[in-house]
Amino acid sequence: MDREELFKKISVENDKKIVLLVLDGLGGLPVNGKTELETARTPNLDLLAAESELGLSHPIAPGITPGSGPAHLSLFGYDPLKYEIGRGILEALGVGIAVGKKDVAVRGNFATLENGLIVDRRAGRIATEKNREITAVLNEKIKKIEDVGIRLTSGEEHRFVLLLTGDGLSDALTDADPEAVGKSIVYARAKNEGAEKTARIVNLFIDRLTAELTAFHPANTCLLRGYAQTPAIPPLKELFKLNAAAIAVYPMYKGLAQLVGMEILSTGRTIEDQVRTLKKHYADHDFFFLHIKKTDSYGEDGNFSGKVSVIEEFDRWLPEVLELRPDVLVITGDHSTPALLKAHSWHPNPVLLKAAFQRPMPLPGRSLDAVAVADRAPAVRGKGKAVHIRAKFSEKACAGGVLGNFMAMDTLPMMMANALKFKKYGA
Amino acid sequence: MDREELFKKISVENDKKIVLLVLDGLGGLPVNGKTELETARTPNLDLLAAESELGLSHPIAPGITPGSGPAHLSLFGYDPLKYEIGRGILEALGVGIAVGKKDVAVRGNFATLENGLIVDRRAGRIATEKNREITAVLNEKIKKIEDVGIRLTSGEEHRFVLLLTGDGLSDALTDADPEAVGKSIVYARAKNEGAEKTARIVNLFIDRLTAELTAFHPANTCLLRGYAQTPAIPPLKELFKLNAAAIAVYPMYKGLAQLVGMEILSTGRTIEDQVRTLKKHYADHDFFFLHIKKTDSYGEDGNFSGKVSVIEEFDRWLPEVLELRPDVLVITGDHSTPALLKAHSWHPNPVLLKAAFQRPMPLPGRSLDAVAVADRAPAVRGKGKAVHIRAKFSEKACAGGVLGNFMAMDTLPMMMANALKFKKYGA
Repeated sequence: MDREELFKKISVENDKKIVLLVLDGLGGLPVNGKTELETARTPNLDLLAAESELGLSHPIAPGITPGSGPAHLSLFGYDPLKYEIGRGILEALGVGIAVGKKDVAVRGNFATLENGLIVDRRAGRIATEKNREITAVLNEKIKKIEDVGIRLTSGEEHRFVLLLTGDGLSDALTDADPEAVGKSIVYARAKNEGAEKTARIVNLFIDRLTAELTAFHPANTCLLRGYAQTPAIPPLKELFKLNAAAIAVYPMYKGLAQLVGMEILSTGRTIEDQVRTLKKHYADHDFFFLHIKKTDSYGEDGNFSGKVSVIEEFDRWLPEVLELRPDVLVITGDHSTPALLKAHSWHPNPVLLKAAFQRPMPLPGRSLDAVAVADRAPAVRGKGKAVHIRAKFSEKACAGGVLGNFMAMDTLPMMMANALKFKKYGA
Repeated sequence: MDREELFKKISVENDKKIVLLVLDGLGGLPVNGKTELETARTPNLDLLAAESELGLSHPIAPGITPGSGPAHLSLFGYDPLKYEIGRGILEALGVGIAVGKKDVAVRGNFATLENGLIVDRRAGRIATEKNREITAVLNEKIKKIEDVGIRLTSGEEHRFVLLLTGDGLSDALTDADPEAVGKSIVYARAKNEGAEKTARIVNLFIDRLTAELTAFHPANTCLLRGYAQTPAIPPLKELFKLNAAAIAVYPMYKGLAQLVGMEILSTGRTIEDQVRTLKKHYADHDFFFLHIKKTDSYGEDGNFSGKVSVIEEFDRWLPEVLELRPDVLVITGDHSTPALLKAHSWHPNPVLLKAAFQRPMPLPGRSLDAVAVADRAPAVRGKGKAVHIRAKFSEKACAGGVLGNFMAMDTLPMMMANALKFKKYGA
């Protein structure tokens, strides 16, 4: 039996509520001896950690740095090496396009053609406003090629997403991109027979677009690459019998949640907005995925203190989540984004799991005195000779936690278990 | 996507240097309360451990005691249950024979034939010198059978390795070994049609050898078993884009390194020689595997203090390795060989990983005071009330390390990540 069959077999519905709070890129690396999480003043997280199970999770496998797609699949309980989310799909999700079963999504660039040669692969990075204008013209003029629906959506600057909709489409095509300037237009080629129709449509599209844009120099042709069909992922409902909802601000994360069948709740842009949305819809679902983006954004920018401040902002809203008394609460990252590296990294995610039936462990550096002090006054540092380090939710505390190091795709099964939503396997 | 496809997809070349120091059989068990590693005075290792990531690795899986073959495959990043290294191959590697794609390696014993019956399966354990003499005679007289090249190489006492070289050979044969005395010569049988040629050659070889050795009683016939072709292991270059070199003293380890495509650097017999070789060739490769054998040999002999002394000798040369400032350094074993058990064991390997981007953790029993004391005077025990246990690189420290318990085959991927030789997986 594979793990998905197992989940289908043992999962049951009940009225317990699961909340998964994801701080994107949460894990970090020390700068001046402390990570972002160790630096942040997080009295509420620290207190919660002292009575939770802690651990570290590998998004994909030890040593593997994931993109957002596989990292989230893993958090949602899927084997991230089993399902590949093509670049075109992520791009489409990123601009808020739903990709259906009959669709092929393609990443596009507007580019500049002069005397039959591509002289700029990004059309001078035209303004996003100009892009929107051109895209509107094209959507008006090219609605269909043969029996295939054509729809463009603007991205930032020179980028757009092309969505093809029709029967018998395939994503097995070569890139229509010379990959260097000074070359002619390159057309797509089918990688197998089943992709010949799509190749023909794509190439007719390139010619049609180029014909329509003669007056739009420098955006007078396009490059296409990263063709992708939507992956056949079984929904959370089917695997876990969950009625799941997502509270995310950025389109890509809404899209990833949609790929696994979550309902997308509309919300505002701040953590406060997201927590309010959680409260408002708390009665309607049994699983909530709340995604906080800016920890990752600051990490990618190398902005250590920015990332610290998002963690602190999150900590201030945490008590409002706790007031809901979720039966199972997990706080984690999808991957680490250390400000030191200015990039996603392979370091495992801190994981905090709070539920009724568990085995918490004292935090490192925590003595009995420290527990007593902390219980009374969360923000006050431990005092007295025995207490060198204040109890703290951190990568180190998680490394010493009862959950040990585990695969992130096991996070959701552990949440299911703690919500008593898994029956016994075997007699 | 399987892990090897993943590695091929995400690995990149750069100028970072990785050094893998393997003390064979490093892990141990306590005798009088301390393991070999805990008993050894290792000030340099201890200091290094305090600023490294530590963990414990299972060579194959929890509870599985490995031989040297699978244990090393695992350290080199391969799934040790995917590739089987036949006994004949290991025997060939052990006597320093390279086995090519057209070869079949076979383990041989000289044996004693009297009145048509095998009366001694080891020919009275003839002296190794005598073995060499006989083997030289045979190599002179039997160079080819049909179109298949024949080459014998002496092992210790009655043992030899037979190498068959030719087209259309197979290792799917039954043993040519009665497995008891008082029985006739047993010939090999083909397990399938493709092995019939090889069975014929092997059996003709037994008869030719027996005919040539009438005057060499007690070594006047042979037994053959453990036929093996070289496993089709994709080289490190292909999986990880590494230009790897091995610095090993014993032929089997050179052979294992060669199986995965490492260049074998010639070196002397001492740890000092091996470290000098590392320094000499440091500019020429981006991955170095340095193998120290004697920890295992003493372990197998039950010589606790012998094993301790090899660990101490290694510690004295460690600073010379550190002076090279490798970008990623791992110190570990291939498996444990506790002197208490006089054998390989299933206990996981201590692992130390030192690199730029990491999350070290205080060693158990180590307070901030202990760190300060250790930094100033490595060999001096911590003093003062707060310091109960001197910081020490040990199995226990590794059990409490940030890396947790993991599979040894993930060691090399983690080294790749820390050397920034892995790109992000997925977008």
